[in-house]
Parts: sequence; structure tokens; C-alpha cells
Amino acid sequence: MRTLIRNISQLVAVPPGPVRGPAFSNPPVIDRAALVIEGEKIAWLGREADSPGGQFEHVLDAEGGTVVPGLIDCHTHAVFAGSREDEFVRKIQGASYLEILQAGGGIRSTMRSVRAASVDEIVEESLPRLTRMLGSGTTTVEIKSGYGLSPEDEVKLLLAIREIGRRLPMEIVPTYLAAHTTPPEYEGRPGDYLAAMTDDALLARIIGEGLAEFADVFTERGAFSVDESRRYLEACRRRGLVPKVHAEQLSSSGSTRMGVALGAASVDHLEFITDEDIAALAGSGTIPVLLPGCSFFLGTPPAPARKLIAAGLPVALATDCNPGSSMIESLPLIMSIACTMLKMTPAECLVACTANAAAALRREDRLGAIAVGHQADLLILYVPNVNAWPYRVGVKSVWKVIRKGRVT
Amino acid sequence: MRTLIRNISQLVAVPPGPVRGPAFSNPPVIDRAALVIEGEKIAWLGREADSPGGQFEHVLDAEGGTVVPGLIDCHTHAVFAGSREDEFVRKIQGASYLEILQAGGGIRSTMRSVRAASVDEIVEESLPRLTRMLGSGTTTVEIKSGYGLSPEDEVKLLLAIREIGRRLPMEIVPTYLAAHTTPPEYEGRPGDYLAAMTDDALLARIIGEGLAEFADVFTERGAFSVDESRRYLEACRRRGLVPKVHAEQLSSSGSTRMGVALGAASVDHLEFITDEDIAALAGSGTIPVLLPGCSFFLGTPPAPARKLIAAGLPVALATDCNPGSSMIESLPLIMSIACTMLKMTPAECLVACTANAAAALRREDRLGAIAVGHQADLLILYVPNVNAWPYRVGVKSVWKVIRKGRVT
Repeated sequence: MRTLIRNISQLVAVPPGPVRGPAFSNPPVIDRAALVIEGEKIAWLGREADSPGGQFEHVLDAEGGTVVPGLIDCHTHAVFAGSREDEFVRKIQGASYLEILQAGGGIRSTMRSVRAASVDEIVEESLPRLTRMLGSGTTTVEIKSGYGLSPEDEVKLLLAIREIGRRLPMEIVPTYLAAHTTPPEYEGRPGDYLAAMTDDALLARIIGEGLAEFADVFTERGAFSVDESRRYLEACRRRGLVPKVHAEQLSSSGSTRMGVALGAASVDHLEFITDEDIAALAGSGTIPVLLPGCSFFLGTPPAPARKLIAAGLPVALATDCNPGSSMIESLPLIMSIACTMLKMTPAECLVACTANAAAALRREDRLGAIAVGHQADLLILYVPNVNAWPYRVGVKSVWKVIRKGRVT
Repeated sequence: MRTLIRNISQLVAVPPGPVRGPAFSNPPVIDRAALVIEGEKIAWLGREADSPGGQFEHVLDAEGGTVVPGLIDCHTHAVFAGSREDEFVRKIQGASYLEILQAGGGIRSTMRSVRAASVDEIVEESLPRLTRMLGSGTTTVEIKSGYGLSPEDEVKLLLAIREIGRRLPMEIVPTYLAAHTTPPEYEGRPGDYLAAMTDDALLARIIGEGLAEFADVFTERGAFSVDESRRYLEACRRRGLVPKVHAEQLSSSGSTRMGVALGAASVDHLEFITDEDIAALAGSGTIPVLLPGCSFFLGTPPAPARKLIAAGLPVALATDCNPGSSMIESLPLIMSIACTMLKMTPAECLVACTANAAAALRREDRLGAIAVGHQADLLILYVPNVNAWPYRVGVKSVWKVIRKGRVT
């Protein structure tokens, strides 16, 4: 099947990731553009006046809109059960993270909801959320476990994540986040808990059934130390899971450098990243993923995005969609937040949510770019240029979502 | 016509404004509630078990959702022409307000677009925006002129605002904001400009045709002084327009006290309000309107909401929807921003966007409350309680919008 998209006011030809330096801040733009899709892939792009001839089964009129790559949300906890608006209110009223934890809140609250739910119930609760994500332009989404916190409940959550991937036209990337926090039955024994969760048979099952691709850890005071995190990630990596790290979110710990040393695909959060960490990242293939939804939601200091960009790092952005610290599903809204809080331009935000997010998921050769041979995951926006997208805060500017060459 | 709304999980019975003190922070809530509408008004509310009998032409099943008053956006500049995403990018890159102004940007940029457009063109550009506002739950919206800045262009903008009110099932409250900034033809002569814009014949026309109800001024360094503002508002008030003030946004000027002394319906912004201003407000009927969208959009310090609330003031919230400093249309999104940046609870935000916003528009006896005899402007939300609404940042939780007893 051959499709022509014509009458594109602005085509943002985001190159394959990782993108850094001048191309990060100024990705190539083609005005009055057209694009040809053959099968599931991009076959041609350029000025409409130069469009190739031949037969097209479909001609899509973009009506003067903007065309960009489908968005890639490379860090979410978007599959869970229950809701934590009560905690949201307590935080507004000044309750600390620790107070909420001691009152049975936080991750353990969602853990109880997830443990009490079946796979079907978790799917039922999460499907509308993922459907909205797709509608807001997210064509690929990473989803972490981490609310089961026992072998059977983590597998249950990973099964729910897989099921959602079967129901929606999105690419779902599953991550094993057993090391999210220590569950009550292992209180005070995080090492024993992680040993149980990296049991050979358990990891063999997860790998064998394709239930996870990445392993992730929350390295933080009150969660897991750098040493515990390293042991967990090493055990997972031996079985084939690629490391990721929740790094330097609430304090500086050296978790970024630990991740780099392990060849992590990404280190995520980085609110408290140091110059030494930045230097380590600069020489690595590890992608820095920023999650400004947390800063918005919790009022915590934002990550030093401009510093990372100035250091030539291929910054990515994600929603961190989760019930405790970022109940935000929309990457376009995250782009608006990154514009205002991280002082990233709309074009930079777009690269960060596409090519570089693809690199954080090790899919940069296939996803996240508008380049010949790349998968035709594309958005047609109502707005005439990419700047107008995050500028219109909270407005749904996505007109058509195209995945593998087909309008979803 | 008699309508029953049943199966309401939570009915937030916001009392008529102005609401302050304990009722502001904890408006009455009825669980498992029902509500009866007769004609355009609320006739009964209470527990569903106590519902009155008799015939109902319509029965609406809220399906376990929450019912709240229709939202009232009491401060917007939502009718204009053109778009200013280029400035948004320049601000992200560090350009100051003054630099943008000197490059021909800011209010004068929108002024040029408005002057070049016809009434029909302005309506055409603005109608989708207002339609989205209605869809997000706004049933009453104040809209200011202030982008024409000449007698004929200000009237043109007010005519466009009126036309939008005829096309949409929303109550439109028009405000004459000639004193937004001095146009180029009066450069350096703000007094002469304001004298021209308070010309007897002009104000007589505006009043005579019902083109405005309020008069507003931007009192700020670089805009109008307190003395100039007072003279403008006094001239407008003599003709019947009720004063409002853009006060203490970028610096402390005494504009709040000027507004209070003139009996202003509201003083809006208040980022730089002083204790003396708060004391003056406390003894007045003037409503403090906070606009946290600007703080979000520009990264400027937020207004001291908790201080105002602690002083017993009936705080209102609004979007300030405008192309330069708050391109935000959705009051629910403003509620989320007020939760996170102003540390207001969801219930407080709701009162601030309903009863107190009605008071800022002098409509508290008819709008903004769920009380017998009040106009049946209501929202049915998908969420089971009011806390879950702003918690789900950016999610459209409004299921049905009811205005004057009818689903829009």
C-alpha cells in the first residue's frame, strides 16, 4: 500500500536518535511538504512540489497542519489499579513523602490495589488511560511493573501490560521494576527482597515469555542503595534485561554513574545530577530522561535541562505517568511543562519525545524519526507549526495518529 | 420541564458566593445524592433516598459521577486574532518582556492582528476556543476587549464578543479594557489616550448597546499609573461600568487599594500583594482573583494564595486566557495548576471557580452555586469525587455540561 500525505504546512524531519547539539535544538523543517508511506515505512519526504509520481492507494490531505513523528513515552508506570487523589490532597496540605508512607500511602497503597486485582481488572482500569495517551499522540509507550512487589504480582502486572499491547495500536515496551520499593513482608531487608526478585526461575520466566525487556530500579534514600541497585541490575542483565535507573531524583547518590558503568539504556529523573555525573554521561551511550511532570505535580526543583543540553547530551522527556508523583498522561502537556519549567523550546521538546526517547528504549533505528526506512508512526497536527503545539497548553492539537502507515 | 439527576456519587453543594473561611475550604458535600431541576433553576437537592416524587420529563443517570456547579471563568482575554507562539519561544530563550515589546511583540502584536481583522474574522478565530472552554466545563465567561486600542477597534472587539455569546450556550460577560496598554499613535501620552477612550459619546454607545458591563485597567509600570487608572475607572463608572483592576502583577503599586476605594468588583493577579493590601481587601466587597496560569506560563512567582485564604478572603481563580501570558483555556487545568503551585485543595479550587468567580462578576445571587433557586448550570463529571478532578491533570473529566437546566 502506498500513501501520500500532502498539504503539510510544516514537516519536522526529526533525524534518528540520539540527537544532540545543533540538530537537537534545530531539527530540519520542510515547509509546504509531502510524505510518502510504503507499507509500514516512510519511503519519501520533501517539498510537495517535488513529490514523486505513481499510484497512491491513499491520499491524506493534512490541510495545512504540521507533521511530526509519533510520540514515544519512554518512562511510565501507567498500568496500575486504584487511585490516590486523597494523597494528592494531603500533599497540597503539606504532608511529607514520609508521612504519607507511614500512613500506608505511596507506592504501597497502589501495591495493595494491584495485589487485590486480577489481570483483567488491571487491564480494565488502565485501558482508558492508555487509549487517551494514544489519542494525545503517543504511539510507543514504555510501561514499568513495580506495584506488585512479589514474584506472582509482578508477573501479573507484566501480563496486564502485555494484554494492553494486544488491545491497542501502540508499541508497548515492558520494564521489570521489582526494585521500586521494598514490600512490607521484607521490611528492613531490601537485599533479601531483591534476591528473591532476581531468582533464576522467575527471571527465566519473565525473559522466556517476553514479559520484560528492561530492568529498572529506584535508587534513592528510603528505596535502594547504589550497591543494592547495581546487584539487582547486574542479575537482571545477566538474564538479558537491559538496565535503566531512577537516578538522582530526590538527592545525589552516584546512581547516574552506576547506570553508565552498567551500560544502562537511560538514567531517568536527574533533578539532583552533578557536574561529575554529566561528564560521565557525556562519554556514554546512556540517555538522560527528564520527567518534569514530577516537578509540576510535587513542586520539587526541576532538572537542569539547559545544562544537560549545553553539555551536548541527547535529552529525552517522558510523562512518568503514575498515581503518586505525576498523574499526567499527555506528552504534549509534558512538552508545555518542559517549555515553561525546563526552558526547552518546542522543537527541543519534540526531539526529546521522539528520537531521543526512542534511543532511551533502544529503538532509534526504527522509531522516533521522520527518515526514509523508518516506521511510519506519524502525527498530523491541527497547528501550522511545531511551536504552536505546546504553546496552546492543554489543547488537543493532534488531529490524526498514524501508526505503521495506517490512521488509528 | 422537570428533570431529575440521580445516581450522583458526590454532589458538591457550593453555597452562593462570596464564600470564605471554613465553607471555602470545606464546601458541603452530599454523598449518593440527587438533584431536581424545574425549568432553568435548581428546585431540590439532597440524598437520593430522600428524592421528591412526582413526574419527571427527564431523568439523567449520573452513573456514579460527581456533580458540581458549571465553572465560571471570571477573567479572560479569550477573543482575539492572530497567534503569538513565536514570542512564547523567545521568552523560553530568555527574551524579556521589554525586549519582546521593543521587537513589536506583546499586546501590540495582537492589536495589529485585531485591527486588521473584521468582526466576522475575529469570531471565526475565537469560536473554536470558546467552544473548547464550554466543553471543559465553563458555562459563564468574562471576556475583555483591550486589543483594539482605538474607539472603533475596541467596539469591533466588543461586537465580536457579543456575537460569540449569541452563538454558544454560555453566558458571556463583556469588559471594556481600553486601558490595556497605550497604542503607538499615543506613544508617551497615556493620559491623552485614556481621555479619548473615555469620551462621552464612545462610552454612551458602549453602555447603550450593552457592549460592556465592567471596565478594567492594567495598572503597572510601563502600562498605566495608579492615578491614570483611577481617572479611567472613574470616568467609566460614571457611565455605569463596574470597575475591575489588573493589580500588583509584576510589582506592588497600590492598585489593589485604589480598586477597593472605587468599589471594584475584583482586583486580579495579586502576585505582589502586600499585607496592607490584604487588610484593605478584608474589609471590602472586592473579590481577589488569582491567575496562576501566568505563573505557569511565564515562570513568574505565584500569588500568595494561602495567605489570602488565611485572611478570610473569598479567593477566585480564572484562566486569564490570552495569547501572551497564559495561552490556557481550561479552568480544570487551572485548578490543577492552583493545586500544585498555589497549594489550594481541589475543593477550594472548585469554590474559587464557581461561587467566588460569580461574585467577581456580580452574579452570585444567580450563578456559581448549587442551591435552590439558583440557575441550573451544572457539570456531571466522570470522576467519583471532586479531589480526583484536578488530580488527573489534563484529563477531560467533564461528561455532561448542563446550562439553564438543559444538556448542551
